[in-house]
Amino acid sequence: MDSKRTTDRRTFLYTSGMAAGALALSLPVTSACRNTQKKDKLGIALVGLGYYSTDLLAPALQETQHAYLAGIVTGSPDKARKWQEQYQIPEKNVYSYETFDQIKDNPDIDVVYIVLPNSMHKEYTIRGAKAGKHVFCEKPMAVTAADCREMIDACKNNGVKLAIGYRMQHEPHTQQLMRFAEENTFGPIRMITAGAGWRWDNPGDHWKNKKSYGGGAMMDMGVYSLQAARYAMGEEPVAVAAQQYTRRPDVFSEVDEFTSFQLQFPGGALANLHTSLGVGMNYLQVNADNGWYRVDPFSAYNGISGESSNGPIAFEAGNQQARQMDDDCLAIINGQDLMVPGEEGLRDIRIVEAIRQSVAEGGRWIDLQG
Amino acid sequence: MDSKRTTDRRTFLYTSGMAAGALALSLPVTSACRNTQKKDKLGIALVGLGYYSTDLLAPALQETQHAYLAGIVTGSPDKARKWQEQYQIPEKNVYSYETFDQIKDNPDIDVVYIVLPNSMHKEYTIRGAKAGKHVFCEKPMAVTAADCREMIDACKNNGVKLAIGYRMQHEPHTQQLMRFAEENTFGPIRMITAGAGWRWDNPGDHWKNKKSYGGGAMMDMGVYSLQAARYAMGEEPVAVAAQQYTRRPDVFSEVDEFTSFQLQFPGGALANLHTSLGVGMNYLQVNADNGWYRVDPFSAYNGISGESSNGPIAFEAGNQQARQMDDDCLAIINGQDLMVPGEEGLRDIRIVEAIRQSVAEGGRWIDLQG
Repeated sequence: MDSKRTTDRRTFLYTSGMAAGALALSLPVTSACRNTQKKDKLGIALVGLGYYSTDLLAPALQETQHAYLAGIVTGSPDKARKWQEQYQIPEKNVYSYETFDQIKDNPDIDVVYIVLPNSMHKEYTIRGAKAGKHVFCEKPMAVTAADCREMIDACKNNGVKLAIGYRMQHEPHTQQLMRFAEENTFGPIRMITAGAGWRWDNPGDHWKNKKSYGGGAMMDMGVYSLQAARYAMGEEPVAVAAQQYTRRPDVFSEVDEFTSFQLQFPGGALANLHTSLGVGMNYLQVNADNGWYRVDPFSAYNGISGESSNGPIAFEAGNQQARQMDDDCLAIINGQDLMVPGEEGLRDIRIVEAIRQSVAEGGRWIDLQG
Repeated sequence: MDSKRTTDRRTFLYTSGMAAGALALSLPVTSACRNTQKKDKLGIALVGLGYYSTDLLAPALQETQHAYLAGIVTGSPDKARKWQEQYQIPEKNVYSYETFDQIKDNPDIDVVYIVLPNSMHKEYTIRGAKAGKHVFCEKPMAVTAADCREMIDACKNNGVKLAIGYRMQHEPHTQQLMRFAEENTFGPIRMITAGAGWRWDNPGDHWKNKKSYGGGAMMDMGVYSLQAARYAMGEEPVAVAAQQYTRRPDVFSEVDEFTSFQLQFPGGALANLHTSLGVGMNYLQVNADNGWYRVDPFSAYNGISGESSNGPIAFEAGNQQARQMDDDCLAIINGQDLMVPGEEGLRDIRIVEAIRQSVAEGGRWIDLQG
């Protein structure tokens, strides 16, 4: 891909007023905000065309009602060409990381979806916000809580929305767990266990064990266990303790291969959680005064399945990523609150920082109420 | 019950040579040890007639092939009378805690089964051993590792066997888990989770929250999680970290209501375990390189049920306590090794002590290899 030529072409199309192309505007522009035109569908540009974009998000965007794949941002001309062919993406909607900021001039793109290594979330979220685009950012939100705050501020200051791509809050079994907590279905919850992991052996997915890229088990999968405890409990934890270790020190010399961590909740529940890049596991168990429930797997891309002391927890799951993007786009279209805004991602990373502190300080309980 | 009269009557019966009463000796005495006569069945005296003896052990002893309920030791004349009637226990086989040591003169009693509060295990095991009786001792073995060692020594010095009443090693689903580890069925094990707990509200079971009686969640149910990790792994852990807390400080002012703890195994697996007297839970999950398995419940008295990535784990469970006492009595009859000897109980209590140390020292990893 000749990015110079692409840029020129995009600029041309935009300035010649043809950019709305594939979009059917359902209503005249009613909002003062340049990205909240009342559309049926928002155009999403995927930023980073790795496995998750390729195998999950792009296919999901063929099923969405309120989102469509409008553009791509990639450093690979080969990938760009392939995607353009497969998804009929016009040249003007193809960006490199160098030309990314010019996306501000492209009205086809309402949302940039950041699907880059964790350490790059902050930069591209802020650049996307400055380009006036709503931002969907993959989990974990960023490497530090300070980074998360900068991202939230950037979106706020530029009048755009920020959603974190956790998926599960959009998934019906998970939504049922959240209702159980809210409605006290099984009485007070006392104990939550969750394990989330996979066996990372893949040299192609090269950054998972790199500290500088925000890798490690806690960052990659641990946030699912953490999220699970928080949404299953419906409360924010008040203290955390954590343990980390590495079974393959040659591979995991910079980051954790295994993390276990415990959360105390204000209502008196305890969560005992773990995560790993050494073994596949995916389960969530909740024990309450009047019963129990269990979802296994609980955060996989499909096959979510649950049972409880009251019987099965069974829903038509649908495509998780399609649900997520539809929910988020519809909320933006209707000017409603996002289900998983940046503040929710920040809550996790604050706890991840306390986990790092607990590990550094020999496993002691860290107060989260400060 | 008039213990003086009982004692006299027992003494009379013994000295008049009628004591063998209900026992059919299958073979002449062939062993030098006074308690290893080749019998079909060993006579067991239950020491302590609380819930576990009443509802589990006595009924189980109606099903055993190699054990029978020969006697009882109780401080309650009312209970004694009731048990004597229900189980046709002769007056001479009924002891109080004061007359307990005279059990040495009673050839009906081959085994004393200590079913007393944890803090009393040591004293009655040692007194039983000194009376020349084999000892079955309920879990947890004792309050300290030093106590366990004294108990082991007392049994050794008196030429009697000591078995810990863990049950699960005699249970077929559990035995399957042990085979999985031994035969590497699912490849190397990487992660073990177990939760064991119940909701303790019962003022009748008055000692569970008393430190002086060896109460608390870790002692009561935590040893099941600990055992589970050890038998599921088939290795001894090399380090442990632990966290404790109490949700009902009014009730659990002396001991833990919740404990979570982590074990590192030499092969590289991690166990993340927990226990509670605040909530019912009973599950064991094992994740290995090539699959997973799960037993839920894993240490309940019945209903043990398992599934795995290879399919169900299903066995005819039978009566756990009957299996346990039959296995142990048969091993004694045949002069074979016990499946769960005192040394196995000691291994757990050593780790329980390290758990106490980790909690006292803010959750740090404690080396278990010393």
